[in-house]
Amino acid sequence: MSDLTLVIGNKNLSSWSLRPWILMKHFGIPFEEVTIRLDVPGTRAEIAKHSPSGLVPCLTVSGEAIWDSLAIAETLAEWYPEKNLWPEDMMARARARCLSAEMHSGFSELRGTWPMDVRCEHKALSRPPGVARDLKRIHALWTGARQDYGQDGPFLFGEFSIADAMYAPVVSRIRTYGPVPMFADLTDYMDAIWEHPAMQEWRAGAREEEAQGWYA
Amino acid sequence: MSDLTLVIGNKNLSSWSLRPWILMKHFGIPFEEVTIRLDVPGTRAEIAKHSPSGLVPCLTVSGEAIWDSLAIAETLAEWYPEKNLWPEDMMARARARCLSAEMHSGFSELRGTWPMDVRCEHKALSRPPGVARDLKRIHALWTGARQDYGQDGPFLFGEFSIADAMYAPVVSRIRTYGPVPMFADLTDYMDAIWEHPAMQEWRAGAREEEAQGWYA
Repeated sequence: MSDLTLVIGNKNLSSWSLRPWILMKHFGIPFEEVTIRLDVPGTRAEIAKHSPSGLVPCLTVSGEAIWDSLAIAETLAEWYPEKNLWPEDMMARARARCLSAEMHSGFSELRGTWPMDVRCEHKALSRPPGVARDLKRIHALWTGARQDYGQDGPFLFGEFSIADAMYAPVVSRIRTYGPVPMFADLTDYMDAIWEHPAMQEWRAGAREEEAQGWYA
Repeated sequence: MSDLTLVIGNKNLSSWSLRPWILMKHFGIPFEEVTIRLDVPGTRAEIAKHSPSGLVPCLTVSGEAIWDSLAIAETLAEWYPEKNLWPEDMMARARARCLSAEMHSGFSELRGTWPMDVRCEHKALSRPPGVARDLKRIHALWTGARQDYGQDGPFLFGEFSIADAMYAPVVSRIRTYGPVPMFADLTDYMDAIWEHPAMQEWRAGAREEEAQGWYA
């Protein structure tokens, strides 16, 4: 598929944008990148130039918009079947879809209380019960995937998949607002995400935003 | 795929359960149905017998659980490629995934303020701004799909697809809490959902629950 443009928000803040971005980078799917600074005058008009839905992330192909992170992921998985964006094993794939869908619709307490901020390190934020509950559930999901399907590699289902892309912003939150003791047994997994070349590139992009005065 | 069990909640109330149920009924995918009465003592224990995640709806296949409505839909689309659970046209399919994903993660005001209750008719409920905003967005999504891809049939993308299953509970809400004047131009679409044989079967199931005293 040629002529792909991914419209994203600030690298430091837009956790939803990170998901398709790291996915496409990991799998070597070429795309033109358009970053739109969020929460400033003109943001809405700028997004509307690229994304008819007014939402980011948005993948456009020949002018058609695909404006949801999970829809983008499923569509790319279909367009590049040889790349195995989902795990190859049928039941592993079904499980990976469950994890990805649960991230897509859930964990609102975690998302709201611990907004992604990839630049900071060990910033102390409160952990109200809702955040603790979300983290416990995520720990169970990651542990189950690693145990049942993750033996052949460092990621949730062994090889990197859409599920890892969906949870990359959660790894960032645990890293920057942690340590969270419960996740000590998943340190290797979280390191694999945090030090992934594409994640490093994303984090460097966030620091460039900072250098441009976006967070002054 | 043999040995499919779909674990669902009350037909009258569980909008998430309706989605995979109507999908499987429409496409003639055989399954054993297990209905669990929600919000009574013992609900949690009953669900745990079938769904290790503790969530409904849950599709189990040979003991493995698929516990999210969109993950169930994508998995079934993959297992039954000849049935075209998604639209056949590539860009229509991408759009249908966007609509389905937006339903999956969004419209929380509508869902919270207007809980599905398929038995009632024209029950007056308040329409706070958040509900009005959700309805306006849904109207735009449906209208766009019908105009761009829905010429060859009564459903969002012509033929019935996962997108219709995802929005069936919204049709129910507009039907039971409406009329909503804005949707007058989509009456034919909403009738096609509301009078769909599987939807009629679901609504009859809700009335049976009532006859058993579930809502006394």
